Amino acid sequence: MSKPVCQGCQSMTTMTIEILYHNEGENPDEWLPALRTALPEANIRQWQAGDAAPADYALVWHPPEGLLENRKGLKAVFNLAAGVDALLASGSVPEDVPVFRLEDAGMAIQIAEYAVYAVLRFFRRFDGYARLQEQREWGFLPPYSRKDFTVGIMGMGVMGKAAAEKLRLFGFPVKGWSRTPKQIEGVACCHGKAGLADFLKNLKVLVCLLPKTPETVHILNAGLFGRLPDGAFVVNLGRGDLLDEKDLLKGLETGKIRAAVLDVTAVEPLPEDHPFWGHPDITLTPHIAGLTYCEETVAVVAESIRQLECGKTPSGLVDRNLGY
Amino acid sequence: MSKPVCQGCQSMTTMTIEILYHNEGENPDEWLPALRTALPEANIRQWQAGDAAPADYALVWHPPEGLLENRKGLKAVFNLAAGVDALLASGSVPEDVPVFRLEDAGMAIQIAEYAVYAVLRFFRRFDGYARLQEQREWGFLPPYSRKDFTVGIMGMGVMGKAAAEKLRLFGFPVKGWSRTPKQIEGVACCHGKAGLADFLKNLKVLVCLLPKTPETVHILNAGLFGRLPDGAFVVNLGRGDLLDEKDLLKGLETGKIRAAVLDVTAVEPLPEDHPFWGHPDITLTPHIAGLTYCEETVAVVAESIRQLECGKTPSGLVDRNLGY
Repeated sequence: MSKPVCQGCQSMTTMTIEILYHNEGENPDEWLPALRTALPEANIRQWQAGDAAPADYALVWHPPEGLLENRKGLKAVFNLAAGVDALLASGSVPEDVPVFRLEDAGMAIQIAEYAVYAVLRFFRRFDGYARLQEQREWGFLPPYSRKDFTVGIMGMGVMGKAAAEKLRLFGFPVKGWSRTPKQIEGVACCHGKAGLADFLKNLKVLVCLLPKTPETVHILNAGLFGRLPDGAFVVNLGRGDLLDEKDLLKGLETGKIRAAVLDVTAVEPLPEDHPFWGHPDITLTPHIAGLTYCEETVAVVAESIRQLECGKTPSGLVDRNLGY
Repeated sequence: MSKPVCQGCQSMTTMTIEILYHNEGENPDEWLPALRTALPEANIRQWQAGDAAPADYALVWHPPEGLLENRKGLKAVFNLAAGVDALLASGSVPEDVPVFRLEDAGMAIQIAEYAVYAVLRFFRRFDGYARLQEQREWGFLPPYSRKDFTVGIMGMGVMGKAAAEKLRLFGFPVKGWSRTPKQIEGVACCHGKAGLADFLKNLKVLVCLLPKTPETVHILNAGLFGRLPDGAFVVNLGRGDLLDEKDLLKGLETGKIRAAVLDVTAVEPLPEDHPFWGHPDITLTPHIAGLTYCEETVAVVAESIRQLECGKTPSGLVDRNLGY
C-alpha cells in the first residue's frame, strides 16, 4: 500500500500503518469509516479486550487498562480531546512515546461561542431579566458600560485566542494570562505567577480555559478571587479541578463573585445533592463547551499521522513535564 | 453666536438655534448638559407645559400633546429612537416638517449582541441545559449542525446589517429580507412579498427587526410560520405589533415554532396575566434590546443639525408614506 503523504511533502514510500482506536462515549460506526476514508493506507482496528498486537498509533479517549501499556511498535498516542490530564494521570502511556492532544479540531469556535454567550449573558443582564420574567415583572435593569466590562482569559492557547478574538469584535476590553509570555493583537497579555495580580485587578469576567496540571489545580480559589474587583463573574470551561468549589460558594455568598457559569465540575456527572445544582447564581452545563466532532478530528489526526510518517513533528505535542 | 458647522463644511455664519427637548423616561440632567456641550451655539430648552415659543428643532421621544402641533419655526423633528411608529401615529408632526430617526447611535451593536446571544442560546441548547439543571440532570443534548443553522433577518437596515455581520463571524448561514432589493456580502438577500417564501423556506431562526408600518403589522402570523421549517425559532426585536401573539402561541403548541425570544410585546408593559410570562418556550425582555445612550445619540443628532444648518440632508430621514 502507498504511504500517506503530508501536505507539502512530495516523497512517497509504501507501508501499512496499524492504528488502534478507542474513543470512549463516541459511536465507532461513525468514527471508523471516517478514519478509514481519511487514511486509506492504514489498517485501523477498534480495540478489543485482549488485543496485544503491535500498533503504530493509538487514537484514544479514556483508554481502558491494557490498551497502551507495553504496546509494541507504538510511535505516538493521539488524545481525542484537548485535555490530556486523565491520560497522563493514568500512567498508561510508555515513557518514550510522544503524546499529541487536539488543539482546535472544531473546538476553538465552540469555546469562543460559549465564552461570548456567557459574557453577553452577564453584560446584557439576561440572567437578571430571566429572574424578572419568573416574577412577571416588566422591570428595567441598569446596563453595564462596555468599556468597563473587561474580560480576562486564563489560558491563551488556540482556544483562548479564538475566544479573545470574538470578544474583541464586540468591543470588550480583553486581557489574557498564560504560563509563558504571549503577544496577541488587541489583548493585554500577562504571564506567570508574577503577572497574575496585574491580570486580575480590573476584570469584570474571568474565563478559565487552563489545562489541568499540578500547577493549576485549585488555581481558582479564595486567594485569587480576593484579587478580583467585587462582583466579578467567573466562567470555567477548563477542568473542574481548577476551581476550589467551596471557595466559589463562599465568594458568591459574600458578593465577591456575582455569578458563575461552569461547564466542568470536580466530580462528573455532578452528584445530585451537590449545592451547585440549585444555586441561583450558578449556571451549569454538562461538559459540552468544546465537543469533539468526528469530521474535524479525523482530518487533524490524519494530517498529523502523515506528518509523523514524513518525519515531521505535528503541532499538539504534549510536554509531559508540564502536563499539557 | 457662531453657527455650528458640519463635518467637511467650511462656511460659517452666525445665528442662534432654538432646540426644544422632551425625552420621555430619560434623565434631563444627563441629556441637557450633553446637548449643550455638543451644540454650544444652540439655545436648548426642555419643554414645559404651555411653552408655545418658536423652535428650530424638536428632539423628542413620546412628545406630549402640544409640543409639536403648530410649533412655529420648526425645521425638523428628531425622534430619539429608531422606531417612529408612535410619533407618526400621534399625528402631531406638521405635514411639511421632516422627521429624522436614529439609525444606529450605539443601538446596532446592541441589536447584534442580542441576536447573537439568542441564536447561540438556541444553537448551543443553553435553554435545554437550563431545564436539565432545574431537574438536577447531567444530560447530553445532541448538538445542531452549524451549516444547517440558517438565520434569517427581516429588516436589513443598519441594525440588520450589523446583526448579519456578527452572525456570519460565527459561521452561521445568514439570509436577509427587506422591502427593497439589497446586496450585502455573505448574506443571501431576498426582498418584497414575492421573495418572502424563498427567504423563509430553510430558516432555523427568524430574527425580526422590521419597523412597524401598516405593511408590517402582524407580519409574523400563522401564514408566515407555515412557510418556515418545523421547529424554527423566532426572535422579535422590532415592535410587538409585528407579531400575532395568538398565532405564536398556537405555533408553539403544535411544534411549528420551537421557542421564541421577545423583546417587545403588543402591550407594554406586558399585563401580569398574559400567557407569555409563564410560557416555558418564551423568553421575555422588557424592550431593552437597543437602548438609546445619551453620548452616542447626542453626537449623531448634533451632527445632523449641523448638516441641516449647512443645507445638507443627514441620514435617517423618515419617509412618512412608508412609515420609517
